[in-house]
Amino acid sequence: MTVTLPPAQDFSYKFSEETKARIPSPLKTCLRYYNDPDIIFLGGGLPRSELFPWDSVSASCAAPPFKTGTAGGMQLHVAKSGQSANAVVSGARDVPLERALQYGFSQGQPELMDFVREHTRRLHRMQYADWDVLATVGNTSAWESTLRVFCNRGDTILAEEYTFSSSLVAAEAQGVRAYPVPLDENGMVPERLGELLDNWERWHDGVPRPKLLYTVPTGQNPTGTCLSNDRRQAVYRLAQQHDLLIVEDEPYYFLQLDPYEADAGRRAPRVFASHEEFVGSLVRSFLSLDTDGRVLRLDSFSKVLAPGTRLGWIAGAKQLLQAYLALLELTVQAPSGFTSSLIAGTLTRWGQEHYIDWLIELRREYTHLRDVVMDALHRYIPAKPWVRVNPTEAGMFFTVHLNAAAHPRFVSEYESQPERVEWALYEKMIAHGVLAVPGMWFRTGGKDPSRSRQAGDTNNIFFRGTFAAVEEDKLVVGIQRLGSMLAEEFGCSGFAR
Amino acid sequence: MTVTLPPAQDFSYKFSEETKARIPSPLKTCLRYYNDPDIIFLGGGLPRSELFPWDSVSASCAAPPFKTGTAGGMQLHVAKSGQSANAVVSGARDVPLERALQYGFSQGQPELMDFVREHTRRLHRMQYADWDVLATVGNTSAWESTLRVFCNRGDTILAEEYTFSSSLVAAEAQGVRAYPVPLDENGMVPERLGELLDNWERWHDGVPRPKLLYTVPTGQNPTGTCLSNDRRQAVYRLAQQHDLLIVEDEPYYFLQLDPYEADAGRRAPRVFASHEEFVGSLVRSFLSLDTDGRVLRLDSFSKVLAPGTRLGWIAGAKQLLQAYLALLELTVQAPSGFTSSLIAGTLTRWGQEHYIDWLIELRREYTHLRDVVMDALHRYIPAKPWVRVNPTEAGMFFTVHLNAAAHPRFVSEYESQPERVEWALYEKMIAHGVLAVPGMWFRTGGKDPSRSRQAGDTNNIFFRGTFAAVEEDKLVVGIQRLGSMLAEEFGCSGFAR
Repeated sequence: MTVTLPPAQDFSYKFSEETKARIPSPLKTCLRYYNDPDIIFLGGGLPRSELFPWDSVSASCAAPPFKTGTAGGMQLHVAKSGQSANAVVSGARDVPLERALQYGFSQGQPELMDFVREHTRRLHRMQYADWDVLATVGNTSAWESTLRVFCNRGDTILAEEYTFSSSLVAAEAQGVRAYPVPLDENGMVPERLGELLDNWERWHDGVPRPKLLYTVPTGQNPTGTCLSNDRRQAVYRLAQQHDLLIVEDEPYYFLQLDPYEADAGRRAPRVFASHEEFVGSLVRSFLSLDTDGRVLRLDSFSKVLAPGTRLGWIAGAKQLLQAYLALLELTVQAPSGFTSSLIAGTLTRWGQEHYIDWLIELRREYTHLRDVVMDALHRYIPAKPWVRVNPTEAGMFFTVHLNAAAHPRFVSEYESQPERVEWALYEKMIAHGVLAVPGMWFRTGGKDPSRSRQAGDTNNIFFRGTFAAVEEDKLVVGIQRLGSMLAEEFGCSGFAR
Repeated sequence: MTVTLPPAQDFSYKFSEETKARIPSPLKTCLRYYNDPDIIFLGGGLPRSELFPWDSVSASCAAPPFKTGTAGGMQLHVAKSGQSANAVVSGARDVPLERALQYGFSQGQPELMDFVREHTRRLHRMQYADWDVLATVGNTSAWESTLRVFCNRGDTILAEEYTFSSSLVAAEAQGVRAYPVPLDENGMVPERLGELLDNWERWHDGVPRPKLLYTVPTGQNPTGTCLSNDRRQAVYRLAQQHDLLIVEDEPYYFLQLDPYEADAGRRAPRVFASHEEFVGSLVRSFLSLDTDGRVLRLDSFSKVLAPGTRLGWIAGAKQLLQAYLALLELTVQAPSGFTSSLIAGTLTRWGQEHYIDWLIELRREYTHLRDVVMDALHRYIPAKPWVRVNPTEAGMFFTVHLNAAAHPRFVSEYESQPERVEWALYEKMIAHGVLAVPGMWFRTGGKDPSRSRQAGDTNNIFFRGTFAAVEEDKLVVGIQRLGSMLAEEFGCSGFAR
């Protein structure tokens, strides 16, 4: 049965002044003659590829079946066109180095984009017809570009109450104000989002309604939560109702971890009977819920392959991606050719199936590290009512939440200001030889009181740590130091819970 | 004798609103603890580098002494830290793959930036103390960032009367208007620039004075001229006098070619007795003339190594580079790690000296291609007073200039409008099987009559072609077709000059 999907809605009325003013370069109109065999094309400023100093690149890279650590199980070799060899796995398609190192293909090298498109089709089961993918140099750039594509100075957006600082800084610099959507221990709260949108004019006199919602739903940065399917559906419905675009920034999507099991003896990594079962176990992306074409998904190889690849992609409605492409052609032009050749070489040799094997293996590794840090937190952080630790559900961060009012000198020394306790504890932590990051550094709309967090648990403070970057034994010692500092500061003796 | 250089002047008053509003992320304040051995650093969102799938990269690359074509004379191998081998040339310093593939080093990997800094010192003999270099993903992005760093909507800039279209499109989209500086057959005309600046208010009622001058002085795109040292000095003095920043976009700087010698029998590539003689033979960069710190030089490996590296750098006053860095950290973050490792590996194995050998070799190759195209132009383009061909001095472009009024149907069919002749000839060219690009596509301020070219030879039109991208025999056939089309159109019989 062939299902004919409907087209995306037209959201071009949301474009920024800049996007509307960005006229395609007339040079592009002649590119259609580039491959015409009857035309000698003297139009392009392409340097002579015979003079590139590299003939081929190779890499020692992981090979399926993947074991702990990566190691070089496979020798990957990508040459200039016509010279390629060793496409051992059937279906491998190389980006010839000669093409990768030349100008062109701002939308991404076809072999790589075909892989990403197929991956997207499989993972997100798209519900409208005219979607596509577009290569980026990573989500940081993709988000900054999103702001340029849609927002003018004075526009507003929504973001989680605490979110990735650089994303906020990018918005503020462009004169785009971010307003916070309240979070609880399970992530963004749809009811509060609905309330905020229903009361926008009343609560924010004269402030324009937000144009888009920026969210990190899976492995939320900094809180480590994973938004449930129900909440995602509720948020999507609100976006439809209030005509918001949703920008999901999902570098941690595949770091959805097994549930934390405190009893180490009962732990066993979840085994999936099939790749379908694995895919079905994943929380649904906003992209997969999107029937309108109002979701832009920012994806990246940074957390699943390596950040230094500086390669990612945006998935969304073709018409919106055209506006990004016009911007990217004037900025990054295209991701690095070395990166494109090496990633396409690796992934097309692995194939879709082994790439999923790789993602399952990563989940196993990061679940283990999450267990190590949770065990240490349970062991060394005082088991008191003023401290709360949520098991990390996804991503690479954990948070330790504290009731600042429980600090013995909350009133006397810190004048009942939770931020002052937060700052003091941050400095004490460093004096104890461990550093985690104060929650306040992630606060949306932090400096503008009308945008800061609303009434509620205003004495709650928290610190974000990562379990990804440090060796396991140092990680445990770090948590021990954190626990010892907290015990000392809050005046309780031991650590044992 | 130690020369103590003066510091750069403070040009921060030129920053855009956006630059002024771009507050550094508070996360950065904790990075100084990252390498502190006493601190367990849980602050950074760095994925676990053991889980990167690549252990090493290798490349087959050109080795000195360089011969025609490149071919793989050297096997370059870059591994994760501690595993590197074959740093055969003394002084080779690798960017370990483990670091290259991790987050960090937005300013550029140190090994590579040290090389670029030393290269800059040698080539441009800096005249103030506090200069530096900053990695970019190429000049297109560097220029777009320059606009973001300095310009607000409504600001104006100056650019050559004909210039790189994408640079103009980037400015227009940001609401920054570019005004043309007249060109002649030797490039930008300082007297006309002075006139323009002296009469700014009178000629441009209510238009803000330009903030910066954008220029492609060497291998000017599209006209292929190379601005003389005298003109550069005059332009720099005007920039001082009228407080302009100069942005020199110099991808073609090292494609300064030997003077064209029409008699093939008398041709011999210029031989340099030493690298000093080669460096001394190059036209002086604006950077090298800069005593104030008002020049930003955009440099790139695109034309001298390969465009797909997506790696370049900006050289200029440290304080100005800080503003770029703050922007780049929110956009591209850093160039590709694969690119950084492979380029640093290649260049530090070659060393500064052999890199200059490489540049000399490139000059030889492109000089030969320029000779091929000039010979063909001399042979096949009608030798008539209405056509002019300048020998290309630098870069990879040639131009054919025509007096549109000499077209037999200039008045009858084209109503005395040179643009209509230009467009008609462009279409005729394609019908004849060759494509060169109409000059009008490069016109600064094209759509605004108050900004278009001033009175003078207004019937001059031109076409830009390249001699870099096409095989030699096709290049010659292309010129033959162009000549035949012109002869037909302008109604003259033969080709022979």
